[in-house]
Amino acid sequence: MEKLLAVNKSYLIVSPIVSSVIGMSSAGFAETPPPPYYAVIFTSRCTKGDNGYSETSDKIVTLVAQQPGFLGVESVRGADGLGITVSYWASEEDGLRWRRNAEHQLAQQLGKKTWYQDYSLRVAEVKRSYIK
Amino acid sequence: MEKLLAVNKSYLIVSPIVSSVIGMSSAGFAETPPPPYYAVIFTSRCTKGDNGYSETSDKIVTLVAQQPGFLGVESVRGADGLGITVSYWASEEDGLRWRRNAEHQLAQQLGKKTWYQDYSLRVAEVKRSYIK
Repeated sequence: MEKLLAVNKSYLIVSPIVSSVIGMSSAGFAETPPPPYYAVIFTSRCTKGDNGYSETSDKIVTLVAQQPGFLGVESVRGADGLGITVSYWASEEDGLRWRRNAEHQLAQQLGKKTWYQDYSLRVAEVKRSYIK
Repeated sequence: MEKLLAVNKSYLIVSPIVSSVIGMSSAGFAETPPPPYYAVIFTSRCTKGDNGYSETSDKIVTLVAQQPGFLGVESVRGADGLGITVSYWASEEDGLRWRRNAEHQLAQQLGKKTWYQDYSLRVAEVKRSYIK
């Protein structure tokens, strides 16, 4: 498990969250174990302009990889500001802890910044996976 | 339920899958009912260039909204070709049917085209949701 986390942490360094921040290209696929495991699906819309978004994304990327039960993350933001980030977790408890943590971070930022116009968070149990 | 589907179908017209095809901006959030329901998480990477991608995206958008149990869809593709599409379904059976259908469509296209380098499909049960 420690090896898996290490692999995923190094993988995260070239994750699309980072690539959207620093503009690099990446593989972008999370290497998850066989189900069951958990997914936190975070959909968000940013306002135009950066407004501190990069800084907070960096902070959240660092945070997510440090959480217990972290398995991997996939994240894309489109040119129109809509973004989907799916993080994967060993247990529902791990996912819920991250959800609370992410909401806390977002709430802190929402008090100061305006770049998240809207967001939704869903916690789901992955039951089947098909990797090409 | 019929009303909900009708709302979601009209909502789909301005979904980000469509917007990625025709270049328009949109709200992009799926309006899902309270959990439990199901999510099909589709992560993919396209090769550079269109290579028939728009045509097949159109076809898949039309297909997804016609499936039984369809609740909504959220989709983003980044500038580097990585895309995440999460479709939501009333039951696991509905989600699995879509998964098979999507794989069938992809397999047909993969035989002819080269724009999906890689993809993964995950079927998950949404247990909790938090909409801002």
